[in-house]
Amino acid sequence: MPYGYNGKILRVNLSTNNIEVDEPEENFYRCYFGGRGFVSYYLLKELKAGVEPLGEGNKLVFAAGVVTGAPIGGCGRNSVGAKSPLTNGYGDSEVGGYWGTELKHAGYDAIIVEGRAKTPVYLWIRDGVVEIRDATHLWGKTTAECQEFIRQELKDPGVRTAIIGPAGENQVRFACILNDINHAAGRTGMGAVMGSKNLKAIAVRGHNRPPLANPEVVSALGRWVKENIHLVRDLHDQGTAVVLTRLNREGGLPTRNFQEGSFEGAGKISGKTMRETILVGRGSCYACPIRCKRIVSVAEPYQVDPVYGGPEYETLASLGSNCGIDNLTAIAKANELCNAYGMDTISTGAVIAFAFECFERGILKKKDSDGLKLNFGNASAMVELVTKIARRQGIGGLLAEGVARAASQIGKGAEEFALHVKGQEIPMHEPCYKQGMGLGYAISPTGADHSHNMHDNLYMALGPQLEDFKAVGILEPLPVADLSPAKVRMLVYYITWYYFLYCLVFCQFVPLTWNYRQMKELVRAITGWNSTVWELMKVGERCLTMTRAFNIREGLDKDGDFLPKRFFTPFSSGPLRGVIIDKNKFEEAKGVFYSMMGWDKRSSGFR
Amino acid sequence: MPYGYNGKILRVNLSTNNIEVDEPEENFYRCYFGGRGFVSYYLLKELKAGVEPLGEGNKLVFAAGVVTGAPIGGCGRNSVGAKSPLTNGYGDSEVGGYWGTELKHAGYDAIIVEGRAKTPVYLWIRDGVVEIRDATHLWGKTTAECQEFIRQELKDPGVRTAIIGPAGENQVRFACILNDINHAAGRTGMGAVMGSKNLKAIAVRGHNRPPLANPEVVSALGRWVKENIHLVRDLHDQGTAVVLTRLNREGGLPTRNFQEGSFEGAGKISGKTMRETILVGRGSCYACPIRCKRIVSVAEPYQVDPVYGGPEYETLASLGSNCGIDNLTAIAKANELCNAYGMDTISTGAVIAFAFECFERGILKKKDSDGLKLNFGNASAMVELVTKIARRQGIGGLLAEGVARAASQIGKGAEEFALHVKGQEIPMHEPCYKQGMGLGYAISPTGADHSHNMHDNLYMALGPQLEDFKAVGILEPLPVADLSPAKVRMLVYYITWYYFLYCLVFCQFVPLTWNYRQMKELVRAITGWNSTVWELMKVGERCLTMTRAFNIREGLDKDGDFLPKRFFTPFSSGPLRGVIIDKNKFEEAKGVFYSMMGWDKRSSGFR
Repeated sequence: MPYGYNGKILRVNLSTNNIEVDEPEENFYRCYFGGRGFVSYYLLKELKAGVEPLGEGNKLVFAAGVVTGAPIGGCGRNSVGAKSPLTNGYGDSEVGGYWGTELKHAGYDAIIVEGRAKTPVYLWIRDGVVEIRDATHLWGKTTAECQEFIRQELKDPGVRTAIIGPAGENQVRFACILNDINHAAGRTGMGAVMGSKNLKAIAVRGHNRPPLANPEVVSALGRWVKENIHLVRDLHDQGTAVVLTRLNREGGLPTRNFQEGSFEGAGKISGKTMRETILVGRGSCYACPIRCKRIVSVAEPYQVDPVYGGPEYETLASLGSNCGIDNLTAIAKANELCNAYGMDTISTGAVIAFAFECFERGILKKKDSDGLKLNFGNASAMVELVTKIARRQGIGGLLAEGVARAASQIGKGAEEFALHVKGQEIPMHEPCYKQGMGLGYAISPTGADHSHNMHDNLYMALGPQLEDFKAVGILEPLPVADLSPAKVRMLVYYITWYYFLYCLVFCQFVPLTWNYRQMKELVRAITGWNSTVWELMKVGERCLTMTRAFNIREGLDKDGDFLPKRFFTPFSSGPLRGVIIDKNKFEEAKGVFYSMMGWDKRSSGFR
Repeated sequence: MPYGYNGKILRVNLSTNNIEVDEPEENFYRCYFGGRGFVSYYLLKELKAGVEPLGEGNKLVFAAGVVTGAPIGGCGRNSVGAKSPLTNGYGDSEVGGYWGTELKHAGYDAIIVEGRAKTPVYLWIRDGVVEIRDATHLWGKTTAECQEFIRQELKDPGVRTAIIGPAGENQVRFACILNDINHAAGRTGMGAVMGSKNLKAIAVRGHNRPPLANPEVVSALGRWVKENIHLVRDLHDQGTAVVLTRLNREGGLPTRNFQEGSFEGAGKISGKTMRETILVGRGSCYACPIRCKRIVSVAEPYQVDPVYGGPEYETLASLGSNCGIDNLTAIAKANELCNAYGMDTISTGAVIAFAFECFERGILKKKDSDGLKLNFGNASAMVELVTKIARRQGIGGLLAEGVARAASQIGKGAEEFALHVKGQEIPMHEPCYKQGMGLGYAISPTGADHSHNMHDNLYMALGPQLEDFKAVGILEPLPVADLSPAKVRMLVYYITWYYFLYCLVFCQFVPLTWNYRQMKELVRAITGWNSTVWELMKVGERCLTMTRAFNIREGLDKDGDFLPKRFFTPFSSGPLRGVIIDKNKFEEAKGVFYSMMGWDKRSSGFR
C-alpha cells in the first residue's frame, strides 16, 4: 500500500487580504513534485500573458517540494518564482537555509502571493495559522535589522524569515530574497517582485514534521552521506570557492568582464586564501553535514559582519576577478552589503564589471559616474557602487536596471559589453571553456543561468556521476569544449535530471555523494512512491517544457536563445588562447537541442 | 567494478561462402542490447536504400540479446529481421523456444546472413565452429522432416533448428521461420527472405553458457517468477487463448474479416474448450515455468501431429472466428499445416478471410477459386487453402502475395476488404475496441502488429502493471476506446518499454509477474550494468527511432501510417455497436505521437 502523499498550498491575496488553502490530490504532487515544478505550473496556469512583472497582476510563488523538511541534508531548500522583471519571462530562483523546512513543518508545501498590499506588510505563518501584519516600521531596514525586529515582535528567536532589503523595496531588477539573511534566492529579480507587492518578509514557524513513508531508509541514506562525505570534502573545506583556482589555471575564470579567462590576482581570492585569512566558521542548511557555506569576519579596512555569511565562488569571481579586483576583504564587504540590501551578487558584480569596461573604453565618463573612477581593479569604487545600486543613487539608478537596459540607455555601442542572455547577466562560468554550459545559458528559460545547467567537466571529475551518466545512456566522456550532438544529448539528459532536482528543490551537492538510484530511493522513502528514474526524468522534462511554454507565451522564442558576441571571439592569450565557440556549431547544437526536446526548430515552440 | 559484457557477431555470406566474426565493444551492446536493436542497427547501417527484399542484396539478421541464454524464463528468444517482402519496409519478428539460447551457448549473439547460395544450404554452428552444408536433399521438406534429417545427419538429437518449410522456399510473402518446428518467427515474411537466400535451416548446438555478473540475483528472480506464477495462471491453464472468451463478450473478437466483433461459435474455439478436448500437453521455452504453449492431438476428421504444438489465440481467431469457423479440429489442422509449411498463421487466416469476403460479395467467383466455395464457415475450404497457398497452387498463388497485393491484382473494389497496414495483415485485436492498439497498428514500422504494441486494457487488469505505469509517469487508468493525448502518451511509454524488451528479446509474459525495476535488476544481474529504467527506456526509444529511420529511407512516410476504412465505420450490432475510431481524433493522435517522438509532423521523419 503506497504511503499516499498529501499537502497544502497556501494562497494569499495582498490586494484583498483573502487567504485560502488548496489541498491538491496526490497525482498533482506526483506530476510536479514541488519547487520549479509548482512555480512553472502556477505561472503557466494563472498568469495572464503579458502581465507586468512589477505590477499587481504578477504572482510570487514560494515553493518547497515533496521531500523538503525531511531530516536529511539537501532537503532544506525552496524555490521562489514569478514573471521576471529582468527577463520579462519565466523567473525563479532556489535558495537554501532553513526557511523551506520551516514552511513544511508549519503545514504548507507552497505559498502563492497575489496582488499588492497598499502599505508594507509581512506574512506570519505559524503551524497552519496565517496572518498579514503591518511592516511599515520595517520598510527601509536591512535584512538583518528586519529579521531582528520580527523575531522580537513575534517573541520567538526561532522564527525563520524570507526577507527583502532596500534593493527589493527599490525594485532593483536583480534584487534577491534572503532566507535567514545569508541564503539568497538570488537570480531573476524575485526581490523586486516581492518589493513591488509591498511584502517585506514571510516569517514562518512550524513544529510538525511531515511523516515519512520509510524513516529507516531516510536514516540510512543520511548515514551514507556522512560516510561518503570525503567525496565532497573540498566543499566543506573551501566552500564553492574550491573551483576558483582550477578554473583560473585552465583559463575558465571570468576576468575583467569576460575579456580574459585567467586572473593574475586569483591566488588572493581563492577558497584556500579565504580559509586561511578571513574565514571564522562554516554555515549550513537544514540537516546537512557538508556545511559548504562560509562565515567570514573582517575588522578593517572594511568591517564585515559575520551574520551575513561569506562569499560563494560566484561572488568571488563576479565582484573579484571579473571586476579585476584581488582584494578579498573588499569582496567580503560587497558580499555583506549585497545580503544586507538584498541584491544578487552575480548580477551586481556583472553590472559593475560592465560599468568598468564602459568607463575604460570612454563610453561612460566621470560626469556619468558621480565622479568615481570606474577602472577595473578599483575596489573602493566597486564597494561604493553596491550601495548606490541598492539605493538607486546617481549612476546606481542606471545600473539597478541590469546590463541590458543600462546599455540600451547609454547607447554608444555599450551593448557590446553588456554580457547577458534574455536580460539576465552571465554567471561566472566561461562559455568558451564549458561549451555545454554556454549552450545551456542560451536555452535556459531564465536567461543566463548556471544552476539549471551542466558542468561539462563533472563527468570526468566525479565517480558517482560516471555511473550516473552511463545509467542515463551517456556511455563515454566528452570534451569540455565540444558542442557535438552527443554533447547536446548529454546536456539534455543532465539538465533534465537537474530540473527534476529543482522540482524537489534538492541540493546539487549532497547528490555528489550518491547516484541517481539513491536519489530515487530517497523519494520513495519520503513519499512512498515506487518511482523509477524514468518517472523522475519525465518530471524534469515536463517542468523544462512548461518553463519554455511560459516564455513562448510571453513572446520569448528562439531569438532569445543567444550568446553575446564576445563568446564567439577567441581569447588572444591565456590557456584558452584561440579557443572559441563556433557560431555555426552553436546554431546547429541549438537545433539538436530543440529536436531532442520535441520543440519546433523555427520558433522553438511547439508543433 | 562492472562485469564487462562481451560477445560475438557472426557474419556469413552465402554468395562467397565467406565467414567472419565481429567482436563489438561493450558500448555497442549497451546501446542496442540485441534483438530488434541489433536488427535495426545492421539494416540501417548496411542495407542499400531500395534493396529488393527477395534479392541477393537483402540481409537476414538472427539476433539474440545480452540476457538471452541466462537460466531464467523469458530469456530463450531471438529476433529475425530483414527488409520485409510484405511491406517493403523494416521487417522483423521475435520467436521463442530454445534456439536463441542454443545460439548464445554456441558462442554468438547474432548472425548476419548475406548474399544468396547457388543451391540450397543450411548452416551448422557448434560451439564457435561454423559450416555451410548442402541442403539440396532437404529442399521441399516440411519443417519436421527437415529437422529430423538434420539431427540424424549431424548425429545429435539435441541440435536446435531454425527452419523454413515449402512456403519459405516458394517465397510466400508471409512465410515464417520455425524454431524447433513449433515456435514461429511469424510476421513480416522472414521465411520468404530465408527462402530467397536458398537457406533451408540454421542448426545450432552450444555447451557454454555465458557467465552471469550475479548468479544469485538471477536465481532469486527466477524463484520470484515461480512464486508469483499465479499471476499468469490462466496463461498456463489455457494458453494465450485465455483472452478469447472475454474479447468475444466485449465485442473485440475479430469475426468474418472484421465485419463483426463477436462470434456465435466462440465457445467452441476457446482456450477452455481446447483444454477440455484436444489438449494433450503444454510446451515451453527455455527455462520457463509458465508453459503457455499448447500441444494438441487430433485423430479425426483431421489428423493433427502433436510435434507441431497447438494454436495460439491469434491462430484461433484468424483461422477461426475471422473465417467464421467454429471447428476447433480444423483450426488445429490448419495450424499444424502452417507450422509444417512455415507460414504465419495470422496472415494466412487473414488472407483466407479476405478471400471468403470477396467470394461472398461476388468479387471472386468459383472460376477464380479452383471450384472451392469460399464461404465464411467453410472449414474444409480453409484447410485446403492453407496447402494451396504454401504450394502457390491455383488461387493459392494469388493469396500467397498477401491481401494488399492480391486485392490489387483482383481489382473490382477488393481493396476495401484487404485489411492491412503497409501490406501486413491486421492481427486479431479489433482496433475499434483497443484504440491505442489501433493507433499502434498504424504507426508500427512493420505494418499492423500486435506484439510491439499496447494492450489498452492491461493497465486495469494487472497489479504490477499499475505500479509500472505510475513509475513511468502514467498516473491514471484510461478508457480502452480512447485516443486522447494522454492515451497517446501511454502508448508512447508502453511501446518504448516494449521496444526495450524486444531489444532484449525478452518474453512479454514473464514480466507480467514482476515490475520494471525487477527487469532492470535482471539486466544488471546478467550483464553487470548498473542501468536505470531511464537508460532502458532510452534503448527502446533509440530502437523505435531507428526502425522509423529505416522506413523513411525506404520512402515509407506518414502516408503509410493508416488504418483501413473499415475501422472508421461503426459496427451495426454487438457490444461495440456504434463504437468507432473518430477519423479526426485518429489523425490528431498520430500528430501527438510524432511530436512526442520528436518526429516531423509533415513527413513524420526527422527535422
